[in-house]
Amino acid sequence: MQFTVTNRELSSKARAGVLKLAHGEIHTPVFMPVATRGAIRALPHFALEQMDFEIILANTYHLYIRPGTSVLENAGGLHEFMQWKRNILTDSGGFQVFSLSDLCKVREHGVEFRSHLDGSKHLFTPLSVLDIQRVIGSDIMMLLDQCIEYPADEKRAAAAVARTLAWAAQAREYYETFDKERQAAFGIVQGSTYPALRRDCALKLIDLDFPGYAIGGLSVGESKQEYVEISELTAGLLPDDKPRYMMGVGSPAEIVESVAHGVDMFDCVMPTRIARNGTLYTSQGRVNIRNAAFENDKSPLDPHCDCYVCRNFSKAYLRHIFRVGEIAALVYNTWHNLYFMKKMMNEIRASVIDGNFEKVRRKYRELF
Amino acid sequence: MQFTVTNRELSSKARAGVLKLAHGEIHTPVFMPVATRGAIRALPHFALEQMDFEIILANTYHLYIRPGTSVLENAGGLHEFMQWKRNILTDSGGFQVFSLSDLCKVREHGVEFRSHLDGSKHLFTPLSVLDIQRVIGSDIMMLLDQCIEYPADEKRAAAAVARTLAWAAQAREYYETFDKERQAAFGIVQGSTYPALRRDCALKLIDLDFPGYAIGGLSVGESKQEYVEISELTAGLLPDDKPRYMMGVGSPAEIVESVAHGVDMFDCVMPTRIARNGTLYTSQGRVNIRNAAFENDKSPLDPHCDCYVCRNFSKAYLRHIFRVGEIAALVYNTWHNLYFMKKMMNEIRASVIDGNFEKVRRKYRELF
Repeated sequence: MQFTVTNRELSSKARAGVLKLAHGEIHTPVFMPVATRGAIRALPHFALEQMDFEIILANTYHLYIRPGTSVLENAGGLHEFMQWKRNILTDSGGFQVFSLSDLCKVREHGVEFRSHLDGSKHLFTPLSVLDIQRVIGSDIMMLLDQCIEYPADEKRAAAAVARTLAWAAQAREYYETFDKERQAAFGIVQGSTYPALRRDCALKLIDLDFPGYAIGGLSVGESKQEYVEISELTAGLLPDDKPRYMMGVGSPAEIVESVAHGVDMFDCVMPTRIARNGTLYTSQGRVNIRNAAFENDKSPLDPHCDCYVCRNFSKAYLRHIFRVGEIAALVYNTWHNLYFMKKMMNEIRASVIDGNFEKVRRKYRELF
Repeated sequence: MQFTVTNRELSSKARAGVLKLAHGEIHTPVFMPVATRGAIRALPHFALEQMDFEIILANTYHLYIRPGTSVLENAGGLHEFMQWKRNILTDSGGFQVFSLSDLCKVREHGVEFRSHLDGSKHLFTPLSVLDIQRVIGSDIMMLLDQCIEYPADEKRAAAAVARTLAWAAQAREYYETFDKERQAAFGIVQGSTYPALRRDCALKLIDLDFPGYAIGGLSVGESKQEYVEISELTAGLLPDDKPRYMMGVGSPAEIVESVAHGVDMFDCVMPTRIARNGTLYTSQGRVNIRNAAFENDKSPLDPHCDCYVCRNFSKAYLRHIFRVGEIAALVYNTWHNLYFMKKMMNEIRASVIDGNFEKVRRKYRELF
């Protein structure tokens, strides 16, 4: 893995860079579409390729439950299994264990849980989640961390940070057994909304010297003000020469703010999830395709968008097929929203390079 | 409309032809994918274009209910609304009124029914369904007929034939007000499984001189033997110089049989419906993608298929995404099955031309 910051924007900490991984270059800041179980929800594969995404995210917990590591191992890893030629980042599954599974118990050595599908018992340890990600063949592996709910009191948040750091130390040692040219491992900064905890967690992770760092535990219900403060604080603590990844974020407005704090990577299910609910990103802000005003509207969803959907269909048609429940409507909506994200990231990146970032930042803050 | 039989196969009544309609040529025998509400279920548009279908079917009843004729009129017709450049055949909605709607009452002047969506009251007459299809801009319009259940006693079947013929006579007169170069109207032969009724209905419709004829009321529960007998009998009664359309049929085996009887056109939801249920057509017969035997199967679904899905994905992957409920699985399954139908029709047509039809007929009879 090689990361180069190629451009800096002077009014903020925004930066553009190139991250070289085993499956090609990634131009940052970057948005990673989420293929939880080895497929982007409601999006056929070729649409993803057409949009030229350089990296996608998949989920260790979900892939471990189904299809399971033996299937993935037999397939030769997830790239081969899902026929995706470019990069894959996998989160460790920690977040899903804490949010989805039943009877989750945090122990010193790891986290015990029951599958949300069949109730079977499982254990994730800092080492086992790396083993799973070795089988998956992730270009970027995430460490097991302890995710907590929001709000959480400081004592609970401190305990989670301590656990996260202890696990990170074990993982760091185990990571030495990996082919580090093929698989990067990122540490995750936790600490809820407590600046001192965030600082402590970040500095101790930096001591462990990971190839990259993520900011976890945000966009979980905190206020906008808290999000911005913790994003700025934490990003500012992380090494300048390594990629910074904001996990599970977010709206266009949140992304553009964290880019201003020097964050390089983002992932979120929001663009695909709201698409399936009929909510679409446009150059005029959010639009709900169910809107009765579109009944006879022959214009495209977004006249400034040149995606497949906007080049071909009217709002009236998109509204009709969504209302009657056609699956194609989910495909088109998802396609459009992901294209919007890609184009937005391209625009943000270009603005960092040519010095117009503040203008772009203002635009997305106002629209979303 | 212009129809030319270009080739005949000597061991049966199978024939190949070219049907010229307002939106291009159709090479028969042809299978028409079903876009009930202006979209093929689970298939994005470009996939349909890639597969090179020359005609699709849409549904007058469903489009009348939603989005309604005023939206379609405002859009400039269904071709424009759904952005489909090639031909569209619409069925009259009769079948749906009888099978879907509530409180359906057949009157002399038409059929009263309540919408299956909101219970609102509506009336279809032989003239009004043509008016709706005028707005839709169908290249081929179907007449209103009375569809009955199977089994039905001969008296009931005879009454339905009489009603169908009376409506056809009214429709024939009204059709004179249409631009016949742009919109063809097909009469529908009913008569259940009663040869005398089929004969009577066919001959009287032929007297009315329609541009083409359909065989309705089959594949509704009758035995395979009954299907073959009525298909052969009815097709044999219809004019040799006009296209013959078998409505709502069917399985590969049924299609190949009716091609042998001289039928030129087919439509059916089966390939797309079973696809969404995980059942796929292959050169080895039907395959259910859920099959546990595919858990680690790296081979394509059908090694003899060159569709997008078979060129890209393994059975193991297709099984996985279907099991976890990914929408992409529905898209891929649908894509494959429609591609299979297109390729099968190409193969049937080529075999009629080069004299190998009996071999192809045997193959599909044995496999499906």
